[in-house]
Amino acid sequence: MRTIPIDLGPRSYDVRVGTGLRQGVGPFLGERGEVSSAAVVSDSNVAAIYADDVLGSLRAANLPAGLVTFPAGEQHKHLSTCSDLYDALFALKPPLDRSSVIVALGGGVPGDVAGFIAATLLRGIRFVQVPTTLLADVDASVGGKTGIDHPAGKNLIGAFHQPAGVLIDVETLSTLPPEQLRSGLAECVKHAVIRDATLLDFIEDQAEALLDCQAQAMGELIARNVEIKAAVVSADERETGLRAILNYGHTFGHAIEAAAGYGNLTHGAAVGLGMVAANRVAVSRGWLDASVAGRIETVLARLDLPTRRAGLEVDDLHHRMLHDKKTRGGRIKFLLPVGLGQVRIVDDLTREEIRDGISYLTAS
Amino acid sequence: MRTIPIDLGPRSYDVRVGTGLRQGVGPFLGERGEVSSAAVVSDSNVAAIYADDVLGSLRAANLPAGLVTFPAGEQHKHLSTCSDLYDALFALKPPLDRSSVIVALGGGVPGDVAGFIAATLLRGIRFVQVPTTLLADVDASVGGKTGIDHPAGKNLIGAFHQPAGVLIDVETLSTLPPEQLRSGLAECVKHAVIRDATLLDFIEDQAEALLDCQAQAMGELIARNVEIKAAVVSADERETGLRAILNYGHTFGHAIEAAAGYGNLTHGAAVGLGMVAANRVAVSRGWLDASVAGRIETVLARLDLPTRRAGLEVDDLHHRMLHDKKTRGGRIKFLLPVGLGQVRIVDDLTREEIRDGISYLTAS
Repeated sequence: MRTIPIDLGPRSYDVRVGTGLRQGVGPFLGERGEVSSAAVVSDSNVAAIYADDVLGSLRAANLPAGLVTFPAGEQHKHLSTCSDLYDALFALKPPLDRSSVIVALGGGVPGDVAGFIAATLLRGIRFVQVPTTLLADVDASVGGKTGIDHPAGKNLIGAFHQPAGVLIDVETLSTLPPEQLRSGLAECVKHAVIRDATLLDFIEDQAEALLDCQAQAMGELIARNVEIKAAVVSADERETGLRAILNYGHTFGHAIEAAAGYGNLTHGAAVGLGMVAANRVAVSRGWLDASVAGRIETVLARLDLPTRRAGLEVDDLHHRMLHDKKTRGGRIKFLLPVGLGQVRIVDDLTREEIRDGISYLTAS
Repeated sequence: MRTIPIDLGPRSYDVRVGTGLRQGVGPFLGERGEVSSAAVVSDSNVAAIYADDVLGSLRAANLPAGLVTFPAGEQHKHLSTCSDLYDALFALKPPLDRSSVIVALGGGVPGDVAGFIAATLLRGIRFVQVPTTLLADVDASVGGKTGIDHPAGKNLIGAFHQPAGVLIDVETLSTLPPEQLRSGLAECVKHAVIRDATLLDFIEDQAEALLDCQAQAMGELIARNVEIKAAVVSADERETGLRAILNYGHTFGHAIEAAAGYGNLTHGAAVGLGMVAANRVAVSRGWLDASVAGRIETVLARLDLPTRRAGLEVDDLHHRMLHDKKTRGGRIKFLLPVGLGQVRIVDDLTREEIRDGISYLTAS
């Protein structure tokens, strides 16, 4: 087991990466002290596979524990789901109190929803994350972002609420659909490009073992990615500066993901395409060596992630980027790599550069 | 104008007390810098009287400003109201962003609801409180407690979210129903008993001016009470210790208020009765001088607040106290005064003492 400390002053916590950690939730809370009860919040899919393991470990640690679930799917990351969850949580016996702990079990959606519930229940109680997807392991589980969607946009309602701990159980990835595994791998490539060239070496070397979900390679990958994200988040908890570099690939990527329609393209696949487009602009500006851009494309392809996509409409994507919640006064923010391990934030891309980046993706 | 600094480290802010401050919201935000727009959140009653003044001052300061309201009344302090408010807020033009500010205009309910909206909109944006009731001025406006009710209990959903500033406009009290003014005065008596004997002298001296809502006496009263609450909250922001002393009169009081049914007894009137009951127990224990208890009753009576109430049912009230959210493991917390300006937290009241405290209130 590896432990990565997340340094956030009074809100510091540890991320643990290992095998079988879903059965260690009870002992983990036992170490905390002053825990009166626990409520596991999960979606219907994940609960069916792993809830019993987690509940069993809580009860073995003599903690009263309840389970509350909601239907799986991004479309349920909504205020009405929270309303149902509050009802179910307040009906638990013994009643939750300020010493209770929420256990967020599942991928990005259960993590975001359960975290938001914890942030707002009794004006904020502790929560522990037990992510079960690679994307949640390396991204959502670090940083304290919780929230739900609104018809006006994703994650528009939420809170920054740091977990009391994160237990990443590599074994849970064995039940993950392959495209979801690849989606997480794309975010790992992103971390490598923005902060750590040696991580790209590792991903290249271990590509097969990673696609095969081998525990040792996967544990190492997750730990290294958590360290990168932790360093960025520690330096900028509330996303006022440095944390923006995590959006590399995301400006183009969000637009591509949204245009594809929910469920037709994974988040990671869209971000991978977004990185390719951003790299193209960076190469055209003379900021990035073409050989580095080529190497990134090769890694993505090796991980079975798309590097081209037919049918993208430039005007539609440009319009979507203009209306992204991170766009201010018509100036769209982009992250452009200037080498492996380093990116630059810009908001001066011309319409022609944006068009060129997208067109590049559609070239066969 | 008086300014009381609230010392909460990086979350510090000022409370200003004066006349006409509702028209100073625009200039106040102008001083902050980096404010992109403002949204006034209020209830239907208060908005009808004061929204134009606030919106006018925002627009005069060249800030885009919108108004969003919900129906007045504690029964609307509910998640479904928040759902409507999110919809209305996300429909504003220009769209709110992380540099936008929510202006919470009104009494306790609008303050709690608007504060919770600010705590959860875009993962938390700044908000300014413009309270319009004496209770909100001296209680809810200091401390960062925001929240909404759930059928399982009051304020069960919420967040600690400190405002960027509080502008208390004494003039707004002129439109307050007399019983609501007296409700706020009861909380002022509470503050005097728990922390500041000289404040009780002031209330006794100025009782007539206060009941008449004279600006100078009222401004002085509010400022002194804000200082007391600020000192307590600064020492215990998240309510883990000292802040509990603010619950003097509230254990009996909440039960009496709930038993009376919504709208039949003001919060302050119930808390006043709760203080009388707690004093009775303290006197019986030999902790409080009977003359001090008598003096507190006289002050309450002078402020037209009840000190006796017919028809209280001991078993019903005891049951309600046992199920209060602050009760742990069947041990009910009480605050007993041990002199003017000092209270002690206890959880060892016998059933007989509780019965005696309540019976005392029903004696004619």
